[in-house]
Amino acid sequence: MRQAILEKNDRLAERNRGFFRARGLLVLNVLSAPGSGKTTFLRETVRSLGPQLRAGIVVGDLATDNDARKLRESGAPVAQITTGTVCHLEAEMVARAVKELDLNGLRLLIIENVGNLVCPASYDLGEDLRIVLFSVTEGEDKPLKYPPMFQAADVVIISKADLAQACGHDREAALANLRRIAPKARVFETSAKTGEGMDAWCEYLRQEARHPRDW
Amino acid sequence: MRQAILEKNDRLAERNRGFFRARGLLVLNVLSAPGSGKTTFLRETVRSLGPQLRAGIVVGDLATDNDARKLRESGAPVAQITTGTVCHLEAEMVARAVKELDLNGLRLLIIENVGNLVCPASYDLGEDLRIVLFSVTEGEDKPLKYPPMFQAADVVIISKADLAQACGHDREAALANLRRIAPKARVFETSAKTGEGMDAWCEYLRQEARHPRDW
Repeated sequence: MRQAILEKNDRLAERNRGFFRARGLLVLNVLSAPGSGKTTFLRETVRSLGPQLRAGIVVGDLATDNDARKLRESGAPVAQITTGTVCHLEAEMVARAVKELDLNGLRLLIIENVGNLVCPASYDLGEDLRIVLFSVTEGEDKPLKYPPMFQAADVVIISKADLAQACGHDREAALANLRRIAPKARVFETSAKTGEGMDAWCEYLRQEARHPRDW
Repeated sequence: MRQAILEKNDRLAERNRGFFRARGLLVLNVLSAPGSGKTTFLRETVRSLGPQLRAGIVVGDLATDNDARKLRESGAPVAQITTGTVCHLEAEMVARAVKELDLNGLRLLIIENVGNLVCPASYDLGEDLRIVLFSVTEGEDKPLKYPPMFQAADVVIISKADLAQACGHDREAALANLRRIAPKARVFETSAKTGEGMDAWCEYLRQEARHPRDW
């Protein structure tokens, strides 16, 4: 049963992927635990990228449109998916939400997934890059404890770096754990509050958006 | 299909509940997002309770025995459940794990669930009390964004209170959100690091353990 659901999702994800490529969009699937700072990080990312790399956003939540409202402060068009009790986004939900966005002029599509370090790892949405946030407040061992999520990451964003000292965060241990579980992932250490690391991350996105993806 | 799984789980959870009552155990199902500080909080809880209210622990994780090792520092017997890719504990897993524990002399059984604010809310384990941790680092709106988890909470532990100032935590907003979603839940504001609030929480457990549960 679960296998059949995942296989159906994988097919619809490939359909999304074809659609996104035809529209020339770079697509990010952004994942993390609840409260790791995804929404603020994405709002600041879109603000920094500006009109050079115009972004649209799809955001998933069990309840409330708090995140959608916060993301709209960036000026980007935002479509909301309310999942109710569903713990992850699926390709079909994304396809429906994207229809609400005017894609003309957009070069980047950001999908903010439900805050959950387990289930969303199994669902391809048709993205080009999986971005996993990992806050310094969560403890250094999260990559070891949630391996499927981190193994599937193309990029890991260490977030809330401004709180590292207050939390007694062991940076070397966190980086060593990441290297062990996700040796190929690009890592950016950031604070959306102070702006630390945001330039390097945005420059990375600009470069990725310049290169067309292989079919 | 999902309905059938949940119904089977509910039956096995009642069997657990009967077993636990026959053994005179007060049973806690402890839930939260990844990185909210469950393990440290529980280690300090067991240390504070001491031999007056002897505890055993069942701990669930996708991978690693990091939490089990940390919990053993409290002196309590600990049984580990490794769930692989399963995002929650089920009643049957708990029944199997409990067989590994010597229950003689125990008055409290603590089940530390997988770090996930969504899926574990649907699975009764046969507990007496659901305890949900909510760290000040996660943002004040988590009860609104993950309502099923907070609606099912008997107790909400606000954790990492020592970091409130560094995070710019808005205490009144967090408490107002909790009252709205979980008006009947008992709330304790704690820091396992400084000890703040731990006495009140442990005294609550002692009182709960004194009162036999209704059948």
